[in-house]
Amino acid sequence: MSDTPWLVLLKKSLERHRNITEARYLQLATITPENRPANRTVVFRGFYGDKDCLKFAVDNRSRKVYQVALQPWAEACWYFTQTREQFRLSGLLHLVEANNADINLQQARQTSWQELSDNARLQFAWDNPGQPRAEDADFALPVPPSEKPLANFCLLLLEPMQVDYLNLVGNPQNRYIYSRYDGWSVKEVNP
Amino acid sequence: MSDTPWLVLLKKSLERHRNITEARYLQLATITPENRPANRTVVFRGFYGDKDCLKFAVDNRSRKVYQVALQPWAEACWYFTQTREQFRLSGLLHLVEANNADINLQQARQTSWQELSDNARLQFAWDNPGQPRAEDADFALPVPPSEKPLANFCLLLLEPMQVDYLNLVGNPQNRYIYSRYDGWSVKEVNP
Repeated sequence: MSDTPWLVLLKKSLERHRNITEARYLQLATITPENRPANRTVVFRGFYGDKDCLKFAVDNRSRKVYQVALQPWAEACWYFTQTREQFRLSGLLHLVEANNADINLQQARQTSWQELSDNARLQFAWDNPGQPRAEDADFALPVPPSEKPLANFCLLLLEPMQVDYLNLVGNPQNRYIYSRYDGWSVKEVNP
Repeated sequence: MSDTPWLVLLKKSLERHRNITEARYLQLATITPENRPANRTVVFRGFYGDKDCLKFAVDNRSRKVYQVALQPWAEACWYFTQTREQFRLSGLLHLVEANNADINLQQARQTSWQELSDNARLQFAWDNPGQPRAEDADFALPVPPSEKPLANFCLLLLEPMQVDYLNLVGNPQNRYIYSRYDGWSVKEVNP
């Protein structure tokens, strides 16, 4: 297990919320081509690699894929209700598409596909997300097989460069900012 | 009550979550001067005015205040756990500071201050948020009186221009995009 300091806290929060499905939902902010913020709920799919990346499953037809290509910086905001902790994870997004040449990333993409629920996999077979819904659109499709990802399925990695941790329990609240240069450094700041 | 279509849905969600404190927490994304997304949890403080603005309480020493001055566009992401609905509210932020000349906005600012809990008001008396925490920093201060807002207390309004509504219940899920030009229009899109 990595000893990255904020990751120790995050894994502890996940463990304490292991029975709460929604605790794996967080909000990911990106920037649109019109230079406006976009913000949506995504599902945390685990960690990847030695840079403590967070994994998400995305459809390469979704708008965030275009946004990542233009501006890879993102900030995820993750609030844990039971422990009243907030993690703001700022960093770079990496998109792993079907044609990625890195064998490890391809393997991670395939594993993520296999770990999806049937309902989650089915969504990748639906019509183009965000486009006008056709009256005769068919959503009652067979679930795509788990062996091989559909071509539009991508793994999205968030590589954290700064983590702003706020713990609302206690008076005053405690807030730490972790920053990565060579390694991770930390400073305590006013809440 | 406004008959703005997405607002009817949002008020219904709030009503169904009225006993859940965290249901009033949402994530607000802005853009930093370095052109990176910033994303943090904010507390919904009610609606304002005939443009269906959302109210938030902010400290004018916080970084988002500088961000709003440079780029007022924001997107709030609000996920309701019990009904499995997501509202993505994209629009313009308006900051109401102590020197705002509009009497109605000043009144709204004062009312918002008075509606804060003691703990929330106290935070505006603390040292500069996000700055390194001094060893001798004093957080055990008296609660500021509720009559008159501290000078650094601001009301922040989000004026929605587009609302992307997703309801995860049902197969397929339902998704509608509401856009404001003269009035509000709606289109149904693929989830």
